[in-house]
Amino acid sequence: MRVAQELLEELVTANRILAREGIVDSFGHVSIRHPGIPDHYLMSRARAPECIEVDDVMAFTLDGVAIDAAGRKSYAERFIHGAIYEVRPDVHAVVHHHSHGVIPFGITGTPLRPLIPLSAAMGTEVPTWDSRTRFGDTNLLVTNMAMARDLAATLGNRSVALMRGHGCVVASGSLRAVVFDSVYLNLNADLQMQAHALGEITFLSRGEIQAVLDTRGAFTYERAWERWCRRAGRPYDLRPMEGPLADLV
Amino acid sequence: MRVAQELLEELVTANRILAREGIVDSFGHVSIRHPGIPDHYLMSRARAPECIEVDDVMAFTLDGVAIDAAGRKSYAERFIHGAIYEVRPDVHAVVHHHSHGVIPFGITGTPLRPLIPLSAAMGTEVPTWDSRTRFGDTNLLVTNMAMARDLAATLGNRSVALMRGHGCVVASGSLRAVVFDSVYLNLNADLQMQAHALGEITFLSRGEIQAVLDTRGAFTYERAWERWCRRAGRPYDLRPMEGPLADLV
Amino acid sequence: MRVAQELLEELVTANRILAREGIVDSFGHVSIRHPGIPDHYLMSRARAPECIEVDDVMAFTLDGVAIDAAGRKSYAERFIHGAIYEVRPDVHAVVHHHSHGVIPFGITGTPLRPLIPLSAAMGTEVPTWDSRTRFGDTNLLVTNMAMARDLAATLGNRSVALMRGHGCVVASGSLRAVVFDSVYLNLNADLQMQAHALGEITFLSRGEIQAVLDTRGAFTYERAWERWCRRAGRPYDLRPMEGPLADLV
Amino acid sequence: MRVAQELLEELVTANRILAREGIVDSFGHVSIRHPGIPDHYLMSRARAPECIEVDDVMAFTLDGVAIDAAGRKSYAERFIHGAIYEVRPDVHAVVHHHSHGVIPFGITGTPLRPLIPLSAAMGTEVPTWDSRTRFGDTNLLVTNMAMARDLAATLGNRSVALMRGHGCVVASGSLRAVVFDSVYLNLNADLQMQAHALGEITFLSRGEIQAVLDTRGAFTYERAWERWCRRAGRPYDLRPMEGPLADLV
Repeated sequence: MRVAQELLEELVTANRILAREGIVDSFGHVSIRHPGIPDHYLMSRARAPECIEVDDVMAFTLDGVAIDAAGRKSYAERFIHGAIYEVRPDVHAVVHHHSHGVIPFGITGTPLRPLIPLSAAMGTEVPTWDSRTRFGDTNLLVTNMAMARDLAATLGNRSVALMRGHGCVVASGSLRAVVFDSVYLNLNADLQMQAHALGEITFLSRGEIQAVLDTRGAFTYERAWERWCRRAGRPYDLRPMEGPLADLV
Repeated sequence: MRVAQELLEELVTANRILAREGIVDSFGHVSIRHPGIPDHYLMSRARAPECIEVDDVMAFTLDGVAIDAAGRKSYAERFIHGAIYEVRPDVHAVVHHHSHGVIPFGITGTPLRPLIPLSAAMGTEVPTWDSRTRFGDTNLLVTNMAMARDLAATLGNRSVALMRGHGCVVASGSLRAVVFDSVYLNLNADLQMQAHALGEITFLSRGEIQAVLDTRGAFTYERAWERWCRRAGRPYDLRPMEGPLADLV
Repeated sequence: MRVAQELLEELVTANRILAREGIVDSFGHVSIRHPGIPDHYLMSRARAPECIEVDDVMAFTLDGVAIDAAGRKSYAERFIHGAIYEVRPDVHAVVHHHSHGVIPFGITGTPLRPLIPLSAAMGTEVPTWDSRTRFGDTNLLVTNMAMARDLAATLGNRSVALMRGHGCVVASGSLRAVVFDSVYLNLNADLQMQAHALGEITFLSRGEIQAVLDTRGAFTYERAWERWCRRAGRPYDLRPMEGPLADLV
Repeated sequence: MRVAQELLEELVTANRILAREGIVDSFGHVSIRHPGIPDHYLMSRARAPECIEVDDVMAFTLDGVAIDAAGRKSYAERFIHGAIYEVRPDVHAVVHHHSHGVIPFGITGTPLRPLIPLSAAMGTEVPTWDSRTRFGDTNLLVTNMAMARDLAATLGNRSVALMRGHGCVVASGSLRAVVFDSVYLNLNADLQMQAHALGEITFLSRGEIQAVLDTRGAFTYERAWERWCRRAGRPYDLRPMEGPLADLV
């Protein structure tokens, strides 16, 4: 089943934005669930996100088997994505990244919590998955479905899970949402570290978090997306939001 | 009543400068009071400040009703601007932003105070408005006049008020002043956080703050404005300072 | 007495480098002693350093009187430069700046001390001048010779003095040295703040500082100057170091 | 014995990448062991890494004598490189740098330890060499073989040694590895400083470090190298990895 060219371009744009905004460096990856085959997902071959082109995108089964690799190497940690899509029908896009703000929280046990509305997607509790708990001393990479499913279980029905000594996963209902949530997760982490040094922090209340999630609309993502496209040197196009792909991006 | 093209260009430039200098990201907005109709103000449609063009600028009543929207979406938080113009005849320009330096002060209760002359506009006391105090658990956005007027009351006759878990408002006598005050407010916050970790801080005294405010002239803003225009890729023009619009920019 | 075009270009380059490397923003200034008239110095008209052109450079008496202003406005704080040249025949270049690393030290009383050889020019002790001590509540600007001479007295025979709530002055034997010393003073301050949070710092010893100062040569400045010219978009030319102006730059 | 043009270009690229990624500024240097003459190494003349061209590269004996200087000035600290190649046949590339993250650890005695897999090359212990211990008060520069051999002895069979009040050395099996290890050493240092302020840090365990080192392949370096080439404005070429030079880069 053929994927619309617009969607492939959107996925390239998401990669470039995550790179431009400092969420991924040479590592980290973003995927979307296949619009026509729900048990497949789309992701680039193993390449730094800021270098990715449309021809790098491949389809994978939820077990991480590339459908038509044609010699293209896959990300070693692609299993993270399938394991989340497998148990979360509400999730249509996933990012695995190691943004610099996030790492210190995963290795110190200091709870990461939302302090502005823009980062409320992380919810009231962000769990930390430690590969050592069940898998002992490894190279920390999630290179098989057993590890990936264990991580997905820690994520549960949330949007964000930290990974000790590694990074995090962010899962959302659309590609633009998952990029947005990744950027503001990292910003929240940076701000929380700075505020931590100043004094006791007033975080968003449980009611405030819920109020933000209840009122957030696509327009919020769009305002950011236009700016991020410009900064990443990518064309900005509202059409996917309005056409048949609207639910997917 | 038609607004001079130069003034519209100035407002676009202000948006671009605030974006280039990191005071706003995809969110935040800047307005000016209408030069001919004091109970109207001018502001862009809902768009990231670094993308704004002259055609995005609209006039609003102080209640936040767009005069000639022609399908253009307004910022959800535009009410902030009108509520301040309504009670502060001395104010001709307002910025609402979430700059990264400012947020930690609004959520920890650590008082933000001026430590260099360039940031003296914040005065001797910067109040913090908390939407929860009167409005309970909300998404923290100032989306109606009741909230905006409550915020304006906290601001009082000052130039800056922080907003807990959100950002701040900056109100000044001219567009160039409000941009200047926004940039140096953020710098002061960054420096105060660094100094806080080093030891006890000597802030400007009350007398020093007054001396700065008594001697500050348009030339200070101009020197910065020329540089900021260059960095933002905008033409620099001294004319508004010298012509009939001088009091407005 | 006519100043060689090369020297004027060098001074423009110094301004652009200080701006590009983040030592000055819209404010701050750099001067050189006049090569032919020792009681004159050369400095730009009042303009942001990254905007300065050759035609902006003017000569001043040590009292701060512009020789041929021709309508060009002078920096309000130009007096700092003359007061130092007046009592320091060994000084041929001065920078007044408010770099972000330096400010927190001037307002907390934490001693700034060299922790790498590249910043050894500050010596074993960096004094802090406080305008309030002798001049009371002012706008903190050094706008007359009385204040400037008081600051120069605090500087004494050193290379660097901090200014409380304001910034610092850096005085050196040549233009390339004063730029170098300004950049690495700021870096040292940044590193010292970070190290301060980690634990007790081992600074350079008195003997190490002296050994650095005894062995530093022009080649060190040149290696940095070539790179800084490239980053600032300015031509790099070794000639001043080799020709008759060698002692001046 | 003539060195392949591709290898010289690779060395230039390594210099440009280290500059672009903020690991070196005007100072610091990177060398590779000569592919045909194991007791020679290749390094640039004394120049800022971001300015280096192919014609700047020279061959040196392990004692630091330039083979064909032709008037080109050598780095004063070149001895560091030869002293390491002399006792470490496994090392084919060396970087000496003063990256900003690393310096605070060398002057406070806080142990630098790996907290993510990407920086595991530093191993379980990073020693700090202090020039003062055996050489007393100097300008801290490693300007002779006696100092360099003392530093190499501190390095031992490890990949990284800090230098108090100065910077560090990084030694690896290939040019792409040494650049990679330098970049992620600095990142680890930055993250460790931030995490240090948040709470007690869980570092990689000894077993995890070993697992990373056992499974790391050239592909990891390549993914980063392609991105870094793009950012540094250098052509990216996989050939050296696949051709006869594969073991050298």
